[in-house]
Amino acid sequence: MTLTGELLVGSRPRARAETFHAVDATTGQTLPTAFSCATAEDVGEACMLADAAYDTYRATSPAERARFLDTIAEELDALGDTLPERAHRESGLPMARLLGERARTTGQLRLFARLLRAGRCVDARIDPAQPERTPIPRADLRQIRIGIGPVAVFGASNFPLAFSVAGGDTASALAAGCPVVARAHPAHPGTSELAGRAILRAVERCGLPDGVFSLLGGPAHAIGAALVSDGAIAAVGFTGSRAGGLALSAIAAARPVPIPVFAEMSSINPVFLLPAALATRADALASAFISSLSMGAGQFCTSPGLVLAIAGESLDRFKAAAARALATVTPQTMLTSSIHATYKAGVAALAARPGVHLLATGPESGPRACHATLFTADADAFLHDPVLSHEIFGSCALIVSCPDFETLHTVARRLEGQLTVSLQMDATDTDQALALMPVLERKAGRILANGWPTGVEVCPAMVHGGPFPATSDGRTTSVGTGAIERFLRPVCYQDLPDALLPAALRDGNPLALHRMIDGTD
Amino acid sequence: MTLTGELLVGSRPRARAETFHAVDATTGQTLPTAFSCATAEDVGEACMLADAAYDTYRATSPAERARFLDTIAEELDALGDTLPERAHRESGLPMARLLGERARTTGQLRLFARLLRAGRCVDARIDPAQPERTPIPRADLRQIRIGIGPVAVFGASNFPLAFSVAGGDTASALAAGCPVVARAHPAHPGTSELAGRAILRAVERCGLPDGVFSLLGGPAHAIGAALVSDGAIAAVGFTGSRAGGLALSAIAAARPVPIPVFAEMSSINPVFLLPAALATRADALASAFISSLSMGAGQFCTSPGLVLAIAGESLDRFKAAAARALATVTPQTMLTSSIHATYKAGVAALAARPGVHLLATGPESGPRACHATLFTADADAFLHDPVLSHEIFGSCALIVSCPDFETLHTVARRLEGQLTVSLQMDATDTDQALALMPVLERKAGRILANGWPTGVEVCPAMVHGGPFPATSDGRTTSVGTGAIERFLRPVCYQDLPDALLPAALRDGNPLALHRMIDGTD
Repeated sequence: MTLTGELLVGSRPRARAETFHAVDATTGQTLPTAFSCATAEDVGEACMLADAAYDTYRATSPAERARFLDTIAEELDALGDTLPERAHRESGLPMARLLGERARTTGQLRLFARLLRAGRCVDARIDPAQPERTPIPRADLRQIRIGIGPVAVFGASNFPLAFSVAGGDTASALAAGCPVVARAHPAHPGTSELAGRAILRAVERCGLPDGVFSLLGGPAHAIGAALVSDGAIAAVGFTGSRAGGLALSAIAAARPVPIPVFAEMSSINPVFLLPAALATRADALASAFISSLSMGAGQFCTSPGLVLAIAGESLDRFKAAAARALATVTPQTMLTSSIHATYKAGVAALAARPGVHLLATGPESGPRACHATLFTADADAFLHDPVLSHEIFGSCALIVSCPDFETLHTVARRLEGQLTVSLQMDATDTDQALALMPVLERKAGRILANGWPTGVEVCPAMVHGGPFPATSDGRTTSVGTGAIERFLRPVCYQDLPDALLPAALRDGNPLALHRMIDGTD
Repeated sequence: MTLTGELLVGSRPRARAETFHAVDATTGQTLPTAFSCATAEDVGEACMLADAAYDTYRATSPAERARFLDTIAEELDALGDTLPERAHRESGLPMARLLGERARTTGQLRLFARLLRAGRCVDARIDPAQPERTPIPRADLRQIRIGIGPVAVFGASNFPLAFSVAGGDTASALAAGCPVVARAHPAHPGTSELAGRAILRAVERCGLPDGVFSLLGGPAHAIGAALVSDGAIAAVGFTGSRAGGLALSAIAAARPVPIPVFAEMSSINPVFLLPAALATRADALASAFISSLSMGAGQFCTSPGLVLAIAGESLDRFKAAAARALATVTPQTMLTSSIHATYKAGVAALAARPGVHLLATGPESGPRACHATLFTADADAFLHDPVLSHEIFGSCALIVSCPDFETLHTVARRLEGQLTVSLQMDATDTDQALALMPVLERKAGRILANGWPTGVEVCPAMVHGGPFPATSDGRTTSVGTGAIERFLRPVCYQDLPDALLPAALRDGNPLALHRMIDGTD
């Protein structure tokens, strides 16, 4: 698997004069391959091909798309360690983590394949004609959901496999019947090329049209902006910063035909330490907290950046234990020098806010390692300074102490939207937990009890989403089978001859799909 | 049922010094009741009450909400002819139509009640824990969809019952578990008050919290703007003009926390007359077309405003027959003098475009009646002038002749998004229809064969929606059971004790809902 550095515009790889290089995340050294930077012409051609492929691709049966997704997973597996090893060089993430991430990536492709084979996700509905109905007869009405159109997928920095070129957004868009134009994250162009070529081999093996998948790279923001602006693009999947997500949303809203942007952006994942749990197991909670916070240098959307509790001796014990645990974490290289610089700036900015006190830092290490940091503040400071609620991407957290439960409840009500909130609780904390639940349900896509938010299961019940600014559309999830719904739209067929209907809706049910008949599911 | 003209802010009706009057649509005379204009304070209070009611209301069971919806329908029925008679005075729409619209309004409330009782729409999912799984155990994960929050509903001008205060947006939002703050259309404040009071009686009968429903009136755009800007509002339902929908979308996007706007805006509902159908039944098609076009003075979102066909003798016959039929239509009073003035201006503007020819007009009548108008143009003119694609709300249509099928196909590809497209076809037109289908599926929410787009069935398979600018979100419908999905968002519960779970997800399934277990539906 030699990397060529080419852009993958459908089946037509091409090199461009302007190139960039990947950087070894651990050493900071430039890696050899010169990767082409996509031009406006490349963006336009990838979108044109995607548009041309759309009608053919969306008309494939769920079973055909399932085979395609399984084939992509096979091709990723066939890369062996080449893929995680390249991802390791480009991201600095440990191999064990990347092997797990690869399993997750192929697992979610196969999960969508199973979803398609189960045949419900196209939501076929038939309301038969009622010619005898009075005062007016009812027509024959049939509905199915079709892929919304070509989807632009932005690879994330922090999951070079699972949220990138062949990640969840791509898997759910392809499952929905949408061609994908992927925009490689500039920090891992080699990983992206390997994954992109795997997808293109699957396109070829499955006999799908050219343009079902393209991959564009390059560091310039203009590439993403051109992609989202292109008239052929019907929706956008993005995981990244709040600034990035808002910028893409603004571009999408300003188009002559606005399109939806599903941006997963910003979350500090509050953890509530309720009194009984804190009293009985402050040390264990502190240790688990630091373990969650320091995992992957805190470079997770679900990293626990805010701890909330009522002030007192138990919380003091928790803080002391957390500070001790922090001193023993192994510093980990951050994904990119830019992320590292942003982390340091965020920590410095938080440290300078009134009422914010440094509690502890982790060991210092190489120039690009994350220097884990814990701050404390009281509720009053937190409630009066919105900066204390800003996400700092990395192993930094703020512990906020409240004088009483009422204040804790007030802090909860004032939180922004979150991907997750967690309750650390014992049975005797149930009343307080019950009082918090309605607030937490308004604030977050996922609520955990006695767990830590890092680690997102890929399954039907998962919600990896949440109210703004956690995402740009809190009615969706980017992980789990529900992710496909972002890229589907319903079409209704009234009195159409069988020959004009999609196979999913024809008399005799040739695709053997589950279909809702007259409202009965 | 004496009208008071009061604002219905939750259970606290109130009068304001600034008032406005309804107008008898047929005579233009001012009607007696003085209706209060909502102030910024009223908007704020209605939103605050809705927010306060939200947690209680969304926690009701689907069965409780079903009872509420049925009770609203009962209360509307209990108004007897008072409601349609008032709607007739304020809208000029014929009583027969309004009796049908009332049946539709109560029918859709009852349809959502049945949907709730069927227990699937909350989409309960349980992925049980797998403590033995390697390398890491799986947590217990459960998901349900909850109401997104208080919804602002804007009453439409053209359906004073079915798309207004107690109309489809209100029914689907209440079904979802969302309080509603309705903004009465200023053209029918009395109809709105009657419907609003019916809903409030149902709130009381069902023991639901104050603030589940409020009704605000007044002619100023500032009322709607304040409503959409209010931090308590989580989503907007709107049916009206493109300008209105875009204005509300811009306000919603500019909020500190942006919210979704489901605006149904603009559609010219193209009808394709395919050659064999046109050759064999030009006269019958013309008669049915004029019947659809002139119904309700063309004041339907689905009025057929564009006819497309290949030039020739058959199309000439169709035009001649349409012109004859148009001469015999009964002119109908338009909904408001403003809509009438906009109609006349739109007709005049279209008449002035190069290549647009007047084919025929209907009879003239009173000062506010719709003067039905038919224009013709060729494909070249249509393709080069976007004004020819603009919606003219009323009985005005443009017949576009194409030199050949290839041009017809090109015109189809260049259409904007539509609520509907219709094919008039015989069996021998199937090849052309098949060639058009992929284009039509991209363009419209509903595709009809040998029918006319006016008349929207309320049923599970209906899609009353479509790509922009037909709506602001082509992934949704505002009619049919799918409308509820606009106002739901998923929440995932991880390892929560049974006591903290919503009843729908508790062990033992106390609500006896359908639940997806481990992905099996």
